[in-house]
Amino acid sequence: MSKIRIAIAGYGNLGRGVELAVKQNPDTELVCVFTRRDPSSVKLLTEGVKVMNISDAASMKDSVDVLIICGGSATDLPEQTPELAKMFNVIDSFDTHKRIPEHFANVDKAAKENGHLAMISLGWDPGLFSLNRLYAESILPNGKSYTFWGKGVSQGHSDAIRRVEGVKRGIQYTVPVEEAMDAVRSGSQPELTTRQKHTRECFIVPEDGADLAKIEAEIKGMKNYFDEYDTTVNFITEEEFDAVHNKMPHGGFVMRSGMTGDGEKTHQMIEYSLRLESNPEFTGSVLVCFARALSRMRAEGATGCKTAFDVAPAYLSPLSGEELRASML
Amino acid sequence: MSKIRIAIAGYGNLGRGVELAVKQNPDTELVCVFTRRDPSSVKLLTEGVKVMNISDAASMKDSVDVLIICGGSATDLPEQTPELAKMFNVIDSFDTHKRIPEHFANVDKAAKENGHLAMISLGWDPGLFSLNRLYAESILPNGKSYTFWGKGVSQGHSDAIRRVEGVKRGIQYTVPVEEAMDAVRSGSQPELTTRQKHTRECFIVPEDGADLAKIEAEIKGMKNYFDEYDTTVNFITEEEFDAVHNKMPHGGFVMRSGMTGDGEKTHQMIEYSLRLESNPEFTGSVLVCFARALSRMRAEGATGCKTAFDVAPAYLSPLSGEELRASML
Repeated sequence: MSKIRIAIAGYGNLGRGVELAVKQNPDTELVCVFTRRDPSSVKLLTEGVKVMNISDAASMKDSVDVLIICGGSATDLPEQTPELAKMFNVIDSFDTHKRIPEHFANVDKAAKENGHLAMISLGWDPGLFSLNRLYAESILPNGKSYTFWGKGVSQGHSDAIRRVEGVKRGIQYTVPVEEAMDAVRSGSQPELTTRQKHTRECFIVPEDGADLAKIEAEIKGMKNYFDEYDTTVNFITEEEFDAVHNKMPHGGFVMRSGMTGDGEKTHQMIEYSLRLESNPEFTGSVLVCFARALSRMRAEGATGCKTAFDVAPAYLSPLSGEELRASML
Repeated sequence: MSKIRIAIAGYGNLGRGVELAVKQNPDTELVCVFTRRDPSSVKLLTEGVKVMNISDAASMKDSVDVLIICGGSATDLPEQTPELAKMFNVIDSFDTHKRIPEHFANVDKAAKENGHLAMISLGWDPGLFSLNRLYAESILPNGKSYTFWGKGVSQGHSDAIRRVEGVKRGIQYTVPVEEAMDAVRSGSQPELTTRQKHTRECFIVPEDGADLAKIEAEIKGMKNYFDEYDTTVNFITEEEFDAVHNKMPHGGFVMRSGMTGDGEKTHQMIEYSLRLESNPEFTGSVLVCFARALSRMRAEGATGCKTAFDVAPAYLSPLSGEELRASML
């Protein structure tokens, strides 16, 4: 059987995560990487794979089965995914939850008009967490759902603290509050405020002579980022920063507390959690696994835009239906 | 929109769980219950629903969209599901893992020949646990999967201890070993023996004058049931038994410990767990939710036998694709 030919658009942390995931899946192969940078400046981890400027993507139209787009959700993906869906079957990890309907419509139109299949908003949230919300809410219609994130690095919040005057290096961890999760697990179905669900921990290397109290106050009061949370600010040395805070861990919890039975008095608890040492490597693994599903669904004639909700789980596995039933059911 | 007309075959704990789940899903309605008993001896929880002998099922052929078969896996379902699939679209919770391929083939043939759609082996294990094994193994191909059960009542083991001489009442709980689960969570990917994964706890009301030491020894040595486990036997009063051990809780954990990245050194942990106060009510909720999917897939023309692996998650929810993308993705 021929391998699924995968291309990557955008070679940052996520692009590298996809590249590494392709290596772990023998039914896939990486055929090229598209970049906005000078291709000669990009060094891949895989031998013999070409790097091309994204403006030359059209020349690869017939050599790629699935293009995995690894740009940012703020400005890259809303433009790139519909545009590239005209030439390729595409997957992205668009994660601006409230703009998903609009993004879906744009991608669906471009993909359908050109006979391609697209999948958007894949990864773990949106993605696996969304799937767990859907399964759990469909099974337990009378209940309450909760999502907690962390402990993990928030890129957006880390960027925000690095913009504060006097901050040389900075990283921010989102931490779920154990007491809040235990309250959910108890079946009490609590109403939880933003502050009750998560805390934020910052680790900062200050510039020489910076005013530490001012940095701390500025971070803690930052609107939309920190003002609604209990935040701790830790000042550390550059050595400690490099030794301890050089990874991108993340994770989280999706919980459904539901009631069933006569009078709806029986408590049923569903919980899904991820503890990831590397967010981009894990997200890359999810994207490659859905690329397999995409190539199969496209071969059956599907076009337009899909999400994780539309993919029968069997499409994700390299095993046949028979093998799956015998080994995993 | 017309409601999904559901029938139940077999009115024990699971049948009642299905009946209660139908009440929680306004797009479904219960139209009848088939029983092997004298129908007049069966009292339902729902007003105005008829109870019929299973031998008269054919007369309801055109009045039922999905028949949920609630018999046992040992002897009932291998016969009932293929037979009833000739007349109805059917769902069962067949859970004898190693006989699934054979059961699938029999049901697939009967359903296809008669233009019906069947789904087998639904519930939480097989069912939701199977789905989680499939998603997790597809995403993290380099890793190890673990399933732990409990804390919960094992019907088979409870039946076994009740057959011991001198036992008046008895119930058995399967308990997952916390240390073993923590070893899995650490990423060490341990090889675990049967004894290391679960313990068994028995609560027994002895007959007057029974030899307690003999009961305990007989239980602990019982081949296939207890000899490979660390078992504790507790003797209690009938009052305590009725007050504390009158429920059917269950649950468990599916874990995937996988490695990604350059040199596959990055640990990624996926964990799914259920904590159920009532096993039959939860299983009934899963079956009704898949009945919704079945009725939609049948309306699109699908026939033959499917499992949870073949059902795109969106089919499970009463919400439209648009609503799902806006609210849950």
